[in-house]
Amino acid sequence: MSLIVQKFGGSSVSDAEGVKRVARRIVEAKNQGHDVVVVVSAMGDTTDELLDLAAEVNNGAQASRELDMLLTAGERISMSVLAIAIHGLGATAQSFTGSQAGIITDGVHGSARLVEVHPDRIRESLDAGNIAIVAGFQGMNRQTRDITTLGRGGSDTTAVALASALGADFCEIYSDVDGVFTADPRIVNTAHKLNEVSSEEMLEMAANGAKILHLRCVEYARRFKIKLHVRSSFSDLEGTWVIPNSTDADADGHDLTKEIPLEQPLISGVAHDRTQAKITVVDVPDVPGYASKIFGSLNDAKINLDMIVQNVSTRSEARTDISFTLPQDQGDEALEVLEKVQDDIGFASIEYNDAIGKLSLVGAGMKSNPGVSFQFFDALSKAGVNIDMISTSEIRISVITRADLLDQAVRAVHTAFNLDSETEATVYGGTGR
Amino acid sequence: MSLIVQKFGGSSVSDAEGVKRVARRIVEAKNQGHDVVVVVSAMGDTTDELLDLAAEVNNGAQASRELDMLLTAGERISMSVLAIAIHGLGATAQSFTGSQAGIITDGVHGSARLVEVHPDRIRESLDAGNIAIVAGFQGMNRQTRDITTLGRGGSDTTAVALASALGADFCEIYSDVDGVFTADPRIVNTAHKLNEVSSEEMLEMAANGAKILHLRCVEYARRFKIKLHVRSSFSDLEGTWVIPNSTDADADGHDLTKEIPLEQPLISGVAHDRTQAKITVVDVPDVPGYASKIFGSLNDAKINLDMIVQNVSTRSEARTDISFTLPQDQGDEALEVLEKVQDDIGFASIEYNDAIGKLSLVGAGMKSNPGVSFQFFDALSKAGVNIDMISTSEIRISVITRADLLDQAVRAVHTAFNLDSETEATVYGGTGR
Repeated sequence: MSLIVQKFGGSSVSDAEGVKRVARRIVEAKNQGHDVVVVVSAMGDTTDELLDLAAEVNNGAQASRELDMLLTAGERISMSVLAIAIHGLGATAQSFTGSQAGIITDGVHGSARLVEVHPDRIRESLDAGNIAIVAGFQGMNRQTRDITTLGRGGSDTTAVALASALGADFCEIYSDVDGVFTADPRIVNTAHKLNEVSSEEMLEMAANGAKILHLRCVEYARRFKIKLHVRSSFSDLEGTWVIPNSTDADADGHDLTKEIPLEQPLISGVAHDRTQAKITVVDVPDVPGYASKIFGSLNDAKINLDMIVQNVSTRSEARTDISFTLPQDQGDEALEVLEKVQDDIGFASIEYNDAIGKLSLVGAGMKSNPGVSFQFFDALSKAGVNIDMISTSEIRISVITRADLLDQAVRAVHTAFNLDSETEATVYGGTGR
Repeated sequence: MSLIVQKFGGSSVSDAEGVKRVARRIVEAKNQGHDVVVVVSAMGDTTDELLDLAAEVNNGAQASRELDMLLTAGERISMSVLAIAIHGLGATAQSFTGSQAGIITDGVHGSARLVEVHPDRIRESLDAGNIAIVAGFQGMNRQTRDITTLGRGGSDTTAVALASALGADFCEIYSDVDGVFTADPRIVNTAHKLNEVSSEEMLEMAANGAKILHLRCVEYARRFKIKLHVRSSFSDLEGTWVIPNSTDADADGHDLTKEIPLEQPLISGVAHDRTQAKITVVDVPDVPGYASKIFGSLNDAKINLDMIVQNVSTRSEARTDISFTLPQDQGDEALEVLEKVQDDIGFASIEYNDAIGKLSLVGAGMKSNPGVSFQFFDALSKAGVNIDMISTSEIRISVITRADLLDQAVRAVHTAFNLDSETEATVYGGTGR
């Protein structure tokens, strides 16, 4: 008998009909003889509604412990309603809060990190023949015994952490799209669903704009060697398997490497990201220590820098221009930080540009294929797309382009690497989540 | 420094404005130097909405553990939103679930009874200078560590239990009415608010239809000698103090008996109840044991009988008629039970009547005043109200009348005992809760 963890996002349980549909799918898995643990997010827009309610009364004050307590009510509702719906189908289910499920976190309200997972009650409930439903996104700080939330991607992370702690065979992540695609089907209508992708590649795709899985969940799955099955709760189609890169055998003795085809495809997909901005610090004195002053002050302000380029200034020989990219929503903060150090460092000016796009080509096969970068830049050049910045990893090449050229750049690269399928991709829901 | 417990019902926190109004009142009490513990019910219609959601998915199945988990989300929302609103006023508050507040119950989901209260975390939070907000209506079963709800009157009971466990000076029960009235102001527009009533009298009033306090909360307050202050969250008026009958001193050494006036008023009020029905079992063989068979079978079905009358049958001398009252919502069940035993017992027929009303006159002063019952029946007689059944306690007389005569009976008795005030009562909200 196998143990599987299934995670359902808020769009899968947005109303009573959605809850019943998900309940049928869960009971089906149970009837097939599996032990089933389900992690569920808050129904539909519940979390946003609770945030709105808090904003109506908080007078601008912070109360992060209380906000966490409030938000966790969303999953409490979805998990118990789902358990009730399962009872309505004649099966038995028990719901558990994060705290009851043994999800122990640190004390950072709003974005707590997992510390330990002790799913003793989940195990007991399964042993008693129940389906166990667990609230995603939440845990408990053991020191203060306060309720915490895990922040973005928290429910996916809960699912993977439980899968790891329970020794599950695999973890299914259900959303409203069919799996991981070679590119966003809303941009490339010939994008096709990948049957399989390595967790290393998935990590690069998630880190570079693919929204189907949160980076944190993929990191967790990779570290703890959890197989993920990313699929849609609106269809019965197989989704995409995300397979840990490992020569180890899993708990059941399956050699995980056997599931990665020997003929590794060159390229897995093209990811894109429109949420970045670029800042250029102009005419920085070209003296050792000045760049580190700039990056030190940005680091102190917890600005997440991505790509960094340093060029000789076009205006002065003893000076240099430093450019970097960062999330658009940290733009104002970064500009403030830089203005504060301007006199001290003595640079001329700051330029800010958020009309940029980032395109990333991801594929484990490029490790052993030096021709990939030529083919990539050639495709962009033929499509008339100028490149502003470049960064690479072993299995990824990323470039910054003009925002208005991003879509055609994605399509050109997708075609150049023979990723186009012969049929058009079906887009569900249109949210791309 | 005193410690007070304040309980706010759902109508007091029905929206963001209500939450902010209640928060201001709480912070005011804190600023006056009190330690403040707040018990709060779910906002407005939340509980009904959650019940509706459960009904949409449950396919008629019972899942009482899960339903309790679901319903407790209501208080989780109200308590954390209230805590956030208090932060918005510059004070600090921490919210606690029933389980976190140490409310330990038995395992009867939907109507759990309190077993123990261990408010260690509440005490710690107060000692740290916080206002403590506690979810009403819920607790935890220690054996299974499952979440339970306390059923009707659960939040009032939570408040009184916490007041007792924490040694609070008193417990304020806030609703949308100004206090306890001599009669329902919607029927008797000259009814007046009582400044004070004994918990013994309040118990009789609550048990006989006065809806302002739940019987269970009054019983708890009486047993543990907690002073209650019943008042409105919509005004600053003093409400009604419900004073435990006791010669004991309270924790601070105040002699509680001193607060009960020596000249006890004869009558505290007139309660009424439209939720009862009457069943008559016709022509029961007048043989020892037959009546107990009837009541035994009703008792087995957990039918709550109130008044019982046995008369010689008008039709047969060897037979008797047995009449009793019960809650209307148990009527169908009681009729089924009786039909099942009809052949065995051999009675002729069953009559059911829910067009009845119950009127109760309550007053500790009637103990020592034999004239009260004459005056009471005389008033009803002059008002043209026929009496169907009668029951009495030391401090109460109740009668069953025709439902359509109940209002005029209440008014007649209210006037006969000089309870009318010279001004009209103000009715808030119109819910009479």
